[in-house]
Amino acid sequence: MICTSWSVGYDQICMATVTQVVGCIAAVSASLHVGKAGPLVHTGACIASILGQGGSHKYHMTCKWLRYFKNDRDRRDLVTCGSGAGIAGAFRAPVAGVLFALETVSSRWRSALLWRAFFTTAMVAVVLRALIDICKTGRCGLFGKGGLIMFDVTSGYINYHVVDLPPVITLGVLGGVLGSLYNFFLDRVLRFYNLINEKGQTYKLLLAATVTICTSCCLFGLPWLATCKPCPTGGEEACPSIGRSGNFKKFQCAMNEYNDLASLFFNTNDDTIRNLYSAGTDHEFHLSSIILFFMASYFLGIFSYGLALPSGLFVPLILTGAAYGRLVGMLIGSQSTLDHGLFAVLGSAALLGGSMRMTVSVCVVILELTNNLLMLPLVMLVLIISKTVADAFNANVYDLLVNLKGFPFLEGHAEPYMRQLSVSDVVTGPLQTFNGLEKVGRIVDVLKTTGHNGFPVVDEPPFSDIPLLYGLVLRAHLLVLLRKKDFISSCTASALDASKHFSPDDFAKRGSGKHDRIEDIELTADEMEMFVDLHPFTNTSPYTVVETMSLAKALILFREVGLRHLLVLPKSSKRAPVVGILTRHDFMPEHVLGLHPYLIKSRWKKVRFGKSAFTNFF
Amino acid sequence: MICTSWSVGYDQICMATVTQVVGCIAAVSASLHVGKAGPLVHTGACIASILGQGGSHKYHMTCKWLRYFKNDRDRRDLVTCGSGAGIAGAFRAPVAGVLFALETVSSRWRSALLWRAFFTTAMVAVVLRALIDICKTGRCGLFGKGGLIMFDVTSGYINYHVVDLPPVITLGVLGGVLGSLYNFFLDRVLRFYNLINEKGQTYKLLLAATVTICTSCCLFGLPWLATCKPCPTGGEEACPSIGRSGNFKKFQCAMNEYNDLASLFFNTNDDTIRNLYSAGTDHEFHLSSIILFFMASYFLGIFSYGLALPSGLFVPLILTGAAYGRLVGMLIGSQSTLDHGLFAVLGSAALLGGSMRMTVSVCVVILELTNNLLMLPLVMLVLIISKTVADAFNANVYDLLVNLKGFPFLEGHAEPYMRQLSVSDVVTGPLQTFNGLEKVGRIVDVLKTTGHNGFPVVDEPPFSDIPLLYGLVLRAHLLVLLRKKDFISSCTASALDASKHFSPDDFAKRGSGKHDRIEDIELTADEMEMFVDLHPFTNTSPYTVVETMSLAKALILFREVGLRHLLVLPKSSKRAPVVGILTRHDFMPEHVLGLHPYLIKSRWKKVRFGKSAFTNFF
Repeated sequence: MICTSWSVGYDQICMATVTQVVGCIAAVSASLHVGKAGPLVHTGACIASILGQGGSHKYHMTCKWLRYFKNDRDRRDLVTCGSGAGIAGAFRAPVAGVLFALETVSSRWRSALLWRAFFTTAMVAVVLRALIDICKTGRCGLFGKGGLIMFDVTSGYINYHVVDLPPVITLGVLGGVLGSLYNFFLDRVLRFYNLINEKGQTYKLLLAATVTICTSCCLFGLPWLATCKPCPTGGEEACPSIGRSGNFKKFQCAMNEYNDLASLFFNTNDDTIRNLYSAGTDHEFHLSSIILFFMASYFLGIFSYGLALPSGLFVPLILTGAAYGRLVGMLIGSQSTLDHGLFAVLGSAALLGGSMRMTVSVCVVILELTNNLLMLPLVMLVLIISKTVADAFNANVYDLLVNLKGFPFLEGHAEPYMRQLSVSDVVTGPLQTFNGLEKVGRIVDVLKTTGHNGFPVVDEPPFSDIPLLYGLVLRAHLLVLLRKKDFISSCTASALDASKHFSPDDFAKRGSGKHDRIEDIELTADEMEMFVDLHPFTNTSPYTVVETMSLAKALILFREVGLRHLLVLPKSSKRAPVVGILTRHDFMPEHVLGLHPYLIKSRWKKVRFGKSAFTNFF
Repeated sequence: MICTSWSVGYDQICMATVTQVVGCIAAVSASLHVGKAGPLVHTGACIASILGQGGSHKYHMTCKWLRYFKNDRDRRDLVTCGSGAGIAGAFRAPVAGVLFALETVSSRWRSALLWRAFFTTAMVAVVLRALIDICKTGRCGLFGKGGLIMFDVTSGYINYHVVDLPPVITLGVLGGVLGSLYNFFLDRVLRFYNLINEKGQTYKLLLAATVTICTSCCLFGLPWLATCKPCPTGGEEACPSIGRSGNFKKFQCAMNEYNDLASLFFNTNDDTIRNLYSAGTDHEFHLSSIILFFMASYFLGIFSYGLALPSGLFVPLILTGAAYGRLVGMLIGSQSTLDHGLFAVLGSAALLGGSMRMTVSVCVVILELTNNLLMLPLVMLVLIISKTVADAFNANVYDLLVNLKGFPFLEGHAEPYMRQLSVSDVVTGPLQTFNGLEKVGRIVDVLKTTGHNGFPVVDEPPFSDIPLLYGLVLRAHLLVLLRKKDFISSCTASALDASKHFSPDDFAKRGSGKHDRIEDIELTADEMEMFVDLHPFTNTSPYTVVETMSLAKALILFREVGLRHLLVLPKSSKRAPVVGILTRHDFMPEHVLGLHPYLIKSRWKKVRFGKSAFTNFF
C-alpha cells in the first residue's frame, strides 16, 4: 500500500488521505470486521509523502524549507516515519510504531532513521497525551476511552509457573497453524475478489454491500443461538444493559440475565478486546459462545479485507486471537493456574505472530496495549513458537499482499539459484548510451523510444583516445536540460560553465505525478541539430559491477546500498566500456526465471523448498 | 570492548569471561561506582564468540553442528545477539536487549538478525523468569529482589499536565549538558589513566587501590556532613535500621532518627535507585544530601570507569541521573504537580540520553525497569531534548571509547571532505597480485613480506589474450593450499580437479588466535619451484569500484555490504586490470587526512563543524 504513494500525484495523495480517514470511519462504524491501524499507517505515509514533495504549490500550502526533502532518500525516510506514526497513533503505542517502521516498512535501515522514527513517534505520544488530557471531560466520543493504555490489565494475572508451559506452548503451536491458514484463506479470497473487482465500479459496490449485509446478518443472527446467562451478583457494571456500551447485553434475555455472545458482538472492537482480556471473568462466557464468536471473527476478518474500502488487519487479528486464546483457555486451561484473560492476550500474540510474523513489534504492541510487562516472557515464548510453526507453511501476510498486487518488491535475500548466475545472464535489451557531447535530436529520439530512466554517458574520440565510461545521466535531468534549451552549436568547443545557467533547485526531485514528459517539450528543427554538453550533469560515480559478478552478490549491493541503476562493466577491455544496466526489474525472480526457465525445476530451487522450515527458522 | 573478542584466542576468551564475571562481582561488592551491564554485555559477547569458533577442541567442548557458525557473518551475528542477551540479563529487560543490540552493537542490520536477537533475549527472559520462580524461597542472595521488574513504580505518579512541561524540558536540557560534560570528563580521565596504566601492572593496581580507597572515604565520610532526620511515623519499614538493607540508616543518629545520605550510600545500587524512584517520598531527603550524593555519584562514576577492572556505565548513569532528577524536582518541582520519584526516573533518562545518545533502547530500558508505560510520552520528550542538546557539544560515549582505544571503527556516514576525493586518491602502496597459476616460491615470498589478507588474481598470457582480473584470493586460503602441498610441476597444464582434494571444512574460518602463519609452513627448495593453481580457490565475484568513484560512495558500499576488501578497477582499459585494493584502514579519516593534510582546514571540514548542532539533530 505504501508503495503506491510514489507513483501518484499530489491531488491523488490528498484524496487518498481524505478517503482513508473517512472510509475507515465509515467501515468501522458499519461494524465491518476491519481494523483502523492499516488506514492510519496509510494516512501517515500519505501525509509524509505530501511533505516530501514540498507541500502543494497549487493550494499554496508550501514552505521554503520543505524543499530540502525533495530527494529520494528523504522522501523514503519520511514515508517510513509516517507509517510508524500511524501505528503509534492507532494503538497509542509509540515504541511499537518505531519497531513497526523498522521491521516491516523500511527496506533499508540507517541509524539516523531510527532516531527520526523515534522523534516522530515521540511527537505522536506527546500530542496524544495532550489530547487525552483535553478530552477528559468526555466530549470526544470514544477517543478518551482507555486512556494512554488501551486495554489496561495491570491489575490481573501475574503469577505463572512451569506447569503453565504446556498449555502456553500448545497455544503457540495452534496459533501458528491458524495464522498461516489465515494467510492462505486471505490469499484465495483476495484472488477471488480481484476477479470481481476488475469488472467495474458496480461490482465493487455490490461486493462490498453483500459482505456488509452478511456481516450484519451474522452479528444479529448468531446471538439467537446463545443461551442466556444469569447476571453476576455484586458486579459494579449494570447488568443487563441495553445501550451501546456495557459488558452485559440484554438481547432478548429475561430480566437479570444477559446474552454473552451479543455482548461480544454489539460492542466496539476495542471494548470487546478489553472484555476478553479482563482478568477474573472466567465464567462470564459460554464455551459455545466463544467458539461461535471465534469462528465468525476469523472468517469475517478474511472476507472483509480486500473489499473496496480502507481496512487494516491488526485489530481483527487481535480480536480473533483474543477469542482463540479464551477458547484454548477454556479447553485446556484447567491444567494450569493461568487466568483466561491472560490466555486471551497470549492468543492475540500467537495469531499476530502466525499471520504477520513480526516478533519485536508485535511483542511491544501487546505490551503497550496491556501495560503488563510481567507477562513479557510468556508473550515472547508464544511469538517465537507461532512464528516458527507458521514459517514452515507459507510467507507472511505482507509478502503475500505485495505479491498479489504485483509490486516489484525486492526481497532482502537472494534466491539460491541466483548464485549460479552472473549478471551478464540477466542483462537484456539493446543498451542506449549517450556521448559526452550529444546531439539534441538523438536525445529526444532515445527518450521517446525507450522508457529507461538512466543512461550511461560514454566519452568517445576525439574527447578521449578510446571509448571511456564517463558516468550515468538521469532521464529527469535530461528533460530539464532540454526544457532550458541551453544548447551549443558545434560538437567541438564545450561550454564548460553550462552548469552556471542552472540552480540546484532545477534538478530537485519533482512532486509525484508532476514528471516532465518528453512529448511536452517542443524543439525546432534547428535546435534538434544542436548539441548539449552532458558532462556537468552526469553522475560520475555510478555504482558498477563486472559482468562476471554473481547475480546474488550484485543483488546484495543493489539492496543494501538502495540503488535504482547498476552499471555492468565488461570483463575484457576490448569491448564497449559498458555492457548493460541493471534495474530492480532485472533482479525480480519472475524476470530471472523467465530468462532461464530451467532453473525453476533445478536442484537449487528444490533444496530451498525442502529446507524452508529450517532455513526460515534461523 | 566487543571488538577485542575477535583478535584473541579461545583461552583468552574463556579467561576474559571468567575475569568479567569474577571481577564484576568483586568491583560491585567493593562499593566501587561501576555497573554490571557492561561486564554482562562483554560476557555475553565472549560466550557467543566461543560458540562461533565451534567450541573448544582442547577442552573437548565442541559440537559438530557448531561448525556451521564458523564464518564471519554468523560469528558477527552471534556476538551481536550475545551482547543483547547481556543487557537483557543485566536489567531483566529483554526488549531493551534487542534494541541495544540494534542501536549500539550492530554495524550492519538484517531482518534475520532482528529475529535472532529477539530469539536470544526471549530465551533470556524465560530462563530468568524460571530462576526467579525457583529463587522465591529467598536463598539466592540479592537475585530474587525486584522480581522481573527491578524498580516497580507502577503504583505511583500517573497524572501530568501542560504545566508540568517547563520543568520537564528544563530537566532535559540540563541533562543533555551534564551528559556531554560527563563524556568530556570521562575522556580526559581515561587519557590520564592510560598514561598511568602503561607504566605496568603495579601502577594499575596502585591506581585501582587509590580510587577504591577514595571511594570508601567518600562513602563513609560524606554522611557525617548530613543532618539527621526524624523517622516518618506510621511507615511500614523499620526506622532507623542498622543492617545491610533498609531505607532509613541510623549512622550515628539518635534513636528515631535516620541519616538520609547514609541511606543512599550504604545500600546496593539497585536499592538506592529504587528508593530514589519511589513515589510519595518527597520529604525523605534533605536538599543538601541529594546535592552531595549527586556530586559524589557523578564524579565517582567518572573516576571509577577505566580502572583495570570490569566496569559498566549504565548503572552509574542511572543512579546519578536519579539523584539529578530528584535535585531538579526539589529545586523547581514546586512549579508542577509531579512527584519527585517521577523526576528521578526522568533524570535517569536525561542523563543516559545525554551521555549514550541512544534513544529507543534507553526509552525501553527505563520502561522495562519501572513498568510504567503511562509516563512514556514524558520519557520520550526528555530523551529527545537531552540527546539533541548533548549532540551539539560532543560525540556519544561509545564513539569516544572506541576512538580512545584506537579501534578502526568505520562510521556509517562519510565525512563531507570525502565527497571531494576519488578512491584513486587514497589507494596506496605497491599492489601485490598473483597469477592464476602462480609459483609457490613467489606466494611464500609475498606472504612473508606483506601483511595483506587479500590478493587480486590476474590471468595473464598465455591463459588469456590480455591481462584479465580473475578474482580475489584470501591469505587464509593460500595458507591452506600451501600446507596441503597440492602443487603441480609445470605452469602449462592445469589440474582442474584440484578442488576435489579439499573439503569445505578445510577453508572454514579458524578459531580466533589459531591463525596459520606462513612461518610455520616448511617447504623444500623443489616445492618452491613448483606451481599452484589458484583458480578453484579464488573468489571470482569480488566487489569492485572504478578508480574515479567518489570516496564517499565507495565508503557507503564498503559499510553497507560489510566488506573487508574492495578492488579498484582502472578507468582506462590500457592499464593493468586492477589498480588497487581498499581495506577498512584506507577509509579511516586519519588515513585520508594523513594523505591529504590540506583537507583538515578545508571549507568542507568547517562547514560540517559549523553545522554540527543542526546536522546531528536530523
